Amino acid sequence: MNDLKREDFEVKKLGKATILSPIYKNYKEAAPDKEYIDDSRRIIYDASLDAFNSAKSSEEEPISFLKAGARKDIYFDPSKTKAAIVTCGGLCPGINNVIRGLVNGLYYRYNVKNIWGIQYGYQGFISDYGHEMVKLTPNVVKDIHLFGGTILGSSRGRQDISAMVDTLERENINILFTIGGDGTLSGNHVIQQEIERRGLKIATAGIPKTIDNDVNFMTKTFGFDTAFTTAASIVRDAHNEATGAYNGVAIVKLMGRDSGFIAANAALAMPDVNFVLIPESKFDMYGPKGFLNELKKRVDERHHALVVVAEGAGQHLFEEGDEVLDKSGNVKHKDIGVYLKDEINKFFADENMEATVKYIDPSYIIRSEVAIPADSVFCNDLALNAVHGAMAGFTDFVVGRWHNQFTYLPIPVATASRKKIDIDGPLWWSVLETTGQPINMYNE
Amino acid sequence: MNDLKREDFEVKKLGKATILSPIYKNYKEAAPDKEYIDDSRRIIYDASLDAFNSAKSSEEEPISFLKAGARKDIYFDPSKTKAAIVTCGGLCPGINNVIRGLVNGLYYRYNVKNIWGIQYGYQGFISDYGHEMVKLTPNVVKDIHLFGGTILGSSRGRQDISAMVDTLERENINILFTIGGDGTLSGNHVIQQEIERRGLKIATAGIPKTIDNDVNFMTKTFGFDTAFTTAASIVRDAHNEATGAYNGVAIVKLMGRDSGFIAANAALAMPDVNFVLIPESKFDMYGPKGFLNELKKRVDERHHALVVVAEGAGQHLFEEGDEVLDKSGNVKHKDIGVYLKDEINKFFADENMEATVKYIDPSYIIRSEVAIPADSVFCNDLALNAVHGAMAGFTDFVVGRWHNQFTYLPIPVATASRKKIDIDGPLWWSVLETTGQPINMYNE
Amino acid sequence: MNDLKREDFEVKKLGKATILSPIYKNYKEAAPDKEYIDDSRRIIYDASLDAFNSAKSSEEEPISFLKAGARKDIYFDPSKTKAAIVTCGGLCPGINNVIRGLVNGLYYRYNVKNIWGIQYGYQGFISDYGHEMVKLTPNVVKDIHLFGGTILGSSRGRQDISAMVDTLERENINILFTIGGDGTLSGNHVIQQEIERRGLKIATAGIPKTIDNDVNFMTKTFGFDTAFTTAASIVRDAHNEATGAYNGVAIVKLMGRDSGFIAANAALAMPDVNFVLIPESKFDMYGPKGFLNELKKRVDERHHALVVVAEGAGQHLFEEGDEVLDKSGNVKHKDIGVYLKDEINKFFADENMEATVKYIDPSYIIRSEVAIPADSVFCNDLALNAVHGAMAGFTDFVVGRWHNQFTYLPIPVATASRKKIDIDGPLWWSVLETTGQPINMYNE
Amino acid sequence: MNDLKREDFEVKKLGKATILSPIYKNYKEAAPDKEYIDDSRRIIYDASLDAFNSAKSSEEEPISFLKAGARKDIYFDPSKTKAAIVTCGGLCPGINNVIRGLVNGLYYRYNVKNIWGIQYGYQGFISDYGHEMVKLTPNVVKDIHLFGGTILGSSRGRQDISAMVDTLERENINILFTIGGDGTLSGNHVIQQEIERRGLKIATAGIPKTIDNDVNFMTKTFGFDTAFTTAASIVRDAHNEATGAYNGVAIVKLMGRDSGFIAANAALAMPDVNFVLIPESKFDMYGPKGFLNELKKRVDERHHALVVVAEGAGQHLFEEGDEVLDKSGNVKHKDIGVYLKDEINKFFADENMEATVKYIDPSYIIRSEVAIPADSVFCNDLALNAVHGAMAGFTDFVVGRWHNQFTYLPIPVATASRKKIDIDGPLWWSVLETTGQPINMYNE
Repeated sequence: MNDLKREDFEVKKLGKATILSPIYKNYKEAAPDKEYIDDSRRIIYDASLDAFNSAKSSEEEPISFLKAGARKDIYFDPSKTKAAIVTCGGLCPGINNVIRGLVNGLYYRYNVKNIWGIQYGYQGFISDYGHEMVKLTPNVVKDIHLFGGTILGSSRGRQDISAMVDTLERENINILFTIGGDGTLSGNHVIQQEIERRGLKIATAGIPKTIDNDVNFMTKTFGFDTAFTTAASIVRDAHNEATGAYNGVAIVKLMGRDSGFIAANAALAMPDVNFVLIPESKFDMYGPKGFLNELKKRVDERHHALVVVAEGAGQHLFEEGDEVLDKSGNVKHKDIGVYLKDEINKFFADENMEATVKYIDPSYIIRSEVAIPADSVFCNDLALNAVHGAMAGFTDFVVGRWHNQFTYLPIPVATASRKKIDIDGPLWWSVLETTGQPINMYNE
Repeated sequence: MNDLKREDFEVKKLGKATILSPIYKNYKEAAPDKEYIDDSRRIIYDASLDAFNSAKSSEEEPISFLKAGARKDIYFDPSKTKAAIVTCGGLCPGINNVIRGLVNGLYYRYNVKNIWGIQYGYQGFISDYGHEMVKLTPNVVKDIHLFGGTILGSSRGRQDISAMVDTLERENINILFTIGGDGTLSGNHVIQQEIERRGLKIATAGIPKTIDNDVNFMTKTFGFDTAFTTAASIVRDAHNEATGAYNGVAIVKLMGRDSGFIAANAALAMPDVNFVLIPESKFDMYGPKGFLNELKKRVDERHHALVVVAEGAGQHLFEEGDEVLDKSGNVKHKDIGVYLKDEINKFFADENMEATVKYIDPSYIIRSEVAIPADSVFCNDLALNAVHGAMAGFTDFVVGRWHNQFTYLPIPVATASRKKIDIDGPLWWSVLETTGQPINMYNE
Repeated sequence: MNDLKREDFEVKKLGKATILSPIYKNYKEAAPDKEYIDDSRRIIYDASLDAFNSAKSSEEEPISFLKAGARKDIYFDPSKTKAAIVTCGGLCPGINNVIRGLVNGLYYRYNVKNIWGIQYGYQGFISDYGHEMVKLTPNVVKDIHLFGGTILGSSRGRQDISAMVDTLERENINILFTIGGDGTLSGNHVIQQEIERRGLKIATAGIPKTIDNDVNFMTKTFGFDTAFTTAASIVRDAHNEATGAYNGVAIVKLMGRDSGFIAANAALAMPDVNFVLIPESKFDMYGPKGFLNELKKRVDERHHALVVVAEGAGQHLFEEGDEVLDKSGNVKHKDIGVYLKDEINKFFADENMEATVKYIDPSYIIRSEVAIPADSVFCNDLALNAVHGAMAGFTDFVVGRWHNQFTYLPIPVATASRKKIDIDGPLWWSVLETTGQPINMYNE
Repeated sequence: MNDLKREDFEVKKLGKATILSPIYKNYKEAAPDKEYIDDSRRIIYDASLDAFNSAKSSEEEPISFLKAGARKDIYFDPSKTKAAIVTCGGLCPGINNVIRGLVNGLYYRYNVKNIWGIQYGYQGFISDYGHEMVKLTPNVVKDIHLFGGTILGSSRGRQDISAMVDTLERENINILFTIGGDGTLSGNHVIQQEIERRGLKIATAGIPKTIDNDVNFMTKTFGFDTAFTTAASIVRDAHNEATGAYNGVAIVKLMGRDSGFIAANAALAMPDVNFVLIPESKFDMYGPKGFLNELKKRVDERHHALVVVAEGAGQHLFEEGDEVLDKSGNVKHKDIGVYLKDEINKFFADENMEATVKYIDPSYIIRSEVAIPADSVFCNDLALNAVHGAMAGFTDFVVGRWHNQFTYLPIPVATASRKKIDIDGPLWWSVLETTGQPINMYNE
């Protein structure tokens, strides 16, 4: 639980919501018995009976998350509200779906018609770059969910906070939706602090975008299902390459800077994989228990092997002090895929074994995919709930999903740490059994 | 909550589990800190803070579900265990994945090697049909997840319970896995009662198969994601047909006997749909608020319309007393799709409006699809947890998923009633907003 | 060869082409050695050595087709040319690709910028319908190739020729491109005759659209590759349905009114099919050699069977005098698919054999598909060559493909008769061997 | 025409074919009017009327190709024939389809049941490697067409000819089918020469496997359609990456060592591409007309660009004397993709323009794909015709396709030179117009 406390999960609100929501009005006419979601409704973090029993006997309220959804009363007056949307960082399937959902939610559910796209990420707030804002309407976004990428363009890296808030002020933007990863959301939080410092009433809402699916307190982030779906078919291709040569070894590098969710799920979905290497599970290359020795055993026995490696795996194998940051401030990892290819080639040469090593790095092919229908529906829901929250006056929050319900979390909580695969949990054990790889490839 | 009580959720166990599980042994060597799942671990049904607060002040323990997973101790001795698998009812994406998961789980995790497939559903237990049992090994099931359908074949309908249990006895089967829908699971329950009556120690475990995703206390059933994925692309095709003609009306009939989950999700994933008709929301054909009048408005305005209808929608439109049962005992509905097509044609003729009505019924095309990767991983997990439960000696149970954890439920609880779309809830409201259809098309 | 003579293959030209083509100018600067296609270049119909030898000794020139492609001199002045595009009949994959190719070809290759889409087929020429013409630009058609259907809409049936030519005159249209089947092209020919009668200088060019691939003197028509690609995967689904039940029989009805090309190719691509029934090969239902008896043999032996039937197969089984015409004037066939399903059910009931018959009719799902890349390239080429021909002043012609070259044919030649599968040729023999079906299922 | 003469196109035959073909017998019973293909039937190379006219007045017979197909009389006695199949070189979609077609053709059409797979390419003939031959039956190959890769495995490089023919002799193999590229086929030819030297009666038949589609006298080689189909969707992904960043440049490297067919067709199928670079069209990097300058213009104007490059393009940009051969003896090119990425990055840095360059190298993902249905049917036909030819006693030949008919060519003719894109022809001009790239990016 990362030492977070109950109060860390309070979502800030700009002020009292006093305007009757247009949705509420519709509801009441058509569905008089419908209940509305008020701000007291929350989802408990730990739904186990054990947790219930210990919470029952405790003074403290258990950790819980604010339930997302349409409120009876809203903070912003739809006819006077101007909203902006910005997309940052690398591509992820579903960005256009989220944009579409935001625009349609604002337009049709709240009658907000003044919606603008900020181009090329946070750069779009800085006038020096000269990226103009683009007007967004339901007609503009009508078919964009059928394409990958982002119609707004994106960029990495930070921009001057003060200049960004100047733009928000100058343009009279009331709500800012940011679609981005850790760095972007932290940026959003700092923007919010500057907004507060200036005494402005601007709501900022984040929709977490990480193809790695590693946001804390969220079962799933958008694009992840599409990512491992696409990865699974490439894993199958790699299997064909491995079996196509005597002692064929195919390596597929998949996304996952700090966690191996894509690698693990792709291997479970296409279970021809023999080794899954992830950041959460340290491994040695050499030595009796090391990966190369295990690989050799496998190749000796079956004459082909298929290795899936998450990009953040095995970083301890590189020398210290070599880390560099990319523009978004993420640690830019050494390329474990190329390293594996080279080491495996060297190793088999040293062992005088003929082997054919094939290396596949499908990163962009996965990131730029069109969202599959399951992601499409999910993106739509995320967007809609972001709209509900922002219209109600919540700010500095992200939309999440927990126990199959949508939630609002304060940004600092969502970015405090990253979700990882529990290597003693059922997901990793399924991978171990599916691959047949040793439980541990570390010499001590 | 269907008036179910805490005690209804107790899962039966054949007896004390006394054999140290082979998985536990592996665990302890490799992951000494790993926790194991004991039978006291449960998942609370309602994870809302409100429910927590009222439960806190109540005497009664809240409703909760037994947590699935590998136990430290098991009931069956792997070397002496004989397991059988049967698949019943209509096709659903993922059946082969479940079969594969069961075989691999039994074989690799528990070292159970005596595994048999019963052919053609419950018929396979009745010797008169002459369907032989087939031996299942990891090699037999290696690639079956890449195909739709079921390698074991299936059938609908009931068979003589006594004769079925005779076969279980005669063949010395210790564990029976049934993959099937309501009728199949109810059959499983009756089999279990006969087993008990005879004092046998045979575990029966069900993996609920309903493409409609309508099992109570389960977030999702296998095949559903694949179903609406496939449906979504057919909905897009239908959109092309609708726009391809002046006043073009395309109707897609999707699965959903008692619930509209596939229809609703397909429409959200491919949001060109103008009307979604589901069993949960009654509608009139005629009259000022009726569907035909609304359809006419839409066609007048845009000159094309796209209708998605769940097969169980609008049954009230047919005369009483006409219901027939299919072999599985399900009420065989009148064909709402054909009815709509005919009525729409008639209506536009009466209105002297030229219109081109196209009707698409993709049922088998959806049912026979290969599971998408998300379903593939899900099927594997369901199967593995079914194996864990049965090996631990649980019986008369199904595997489910709740709050992103796997659970075991008594069969009678799972079949007591069906999950439906809450027409006052967020799913249906998203559909209403996406389609723009009236909240209600019922004259009174 | 349908008794056609050399002179039947002359393509009409509006007059002398006297304007230097902009493409020619480009060519000459950049590729001075490039040869241009003049009107004497032709492709011989029969490329066999035998035909060569007999032609060599004959007085007559062998049958040949005008070679398509960009001419040095064109008839229409690009800056003053107004072009129109109309799409007629049922959907076929690739229509939007052809529209896109026409617009881009006119715009970029010839600098013709006055391009209009006629909406909803030939109806669009008749002012009573009130369908407005839509302006087409490269920007409008930019992404339409990624969607199935037709952005212009379509309709079936004839319209008043005189009124249509009135519209062409009134709107000052110089070139009309028609994308449609037999009926549409015949309509085009009649329009051309009226144009000539009035002494107008309007070129009409057809791009044959028949998903059945049955145009004479053309190796392939657009959409066909996509059609059997989509059909193949549905055939695989049907195989799953057939094997999923004891004595399961799955029937897939595919397009093919007068020819079985889609059925044959789908069966070759997905060779689980046991029977292919096509219009070209007559069969009996009953009797010792009849289909039902052969089906029974197969089901007895393997307990499942997969039947692919072209919609035009077995029409002799229906009573005479029942033929009706659809709006386009095509003979509307009895539904052989439903007939087969009913007869098979009856037959197995009479034989006291349990059997489960499943019937799949995917027509619209195939017709509305997005063109696969091979079709996409092909559509583009067809469109470009249609533009070249029309700009050069050819009229009353269609674009075809023969010996891997694009050709121009007079419309009457292309619509004179339909291409059929030669049941003594290699395609049908491959089908017979792949399916293992009897060479002939006709009692005498 | 590569200076080849009429007599170069004679296909060798082992001797007189004297056994009545089982197919012929079937034919005669069922289709008494069917014509059979005798060895005099040929397809003329040049089907233009011009060629006809000049051939008419010439003494010489025009160049023509032997027509493939089932002969009345065959050379090998089916009951005593032993056939072997070997697959060599890199993967290509459809190899398994060809294997399946060969096995089924031999088994069902000729009743040859003694069929063996040589594992791992020509290595499989050399006993030192220890690769055992595998028995092939219809049951073994039943579903292999649904997978990519090759079930026999492959290898690159030459092996000792004498040792290979020793194996053919020792194993009493009568017919050898080789599926491979240039090097493999040349190997086949040398094997044939050794067979002749020894006076053996072994037929060798090749099915040309080159994903590049660059075999002379063949319209198409198998796998090519699948290759550019897969490539097209990756090109679309790259478009998303390019537009996702300000001044985004995406580069996709596609196969094509000596020709740009895949690159050209992928760009035509997915026409977002701005530059196609192929081996046939030399280009400069620097200078006013050079590629980088043109790229800059494009990026300046639209802020994104998409480049497709064939792997063999721009080889003149690398220094001489650096060429190395791979194991198959092909010239191993410098990596133009990596070179472009580096140069573009450097260039934009020099120009002080922000740009984001993304490089995609999908090679293995394309090579290992499952054949699309169009390729599936094509592979089947190629295989069947290879079987017909070999059974008839033809040897040292490959199967091709010309003017939509299947042909037999002597191996030396097929490997004499490679087919290339005519940069003055319609394919390349379509690419130029689709991309809008300059006709020529060469400073002189």
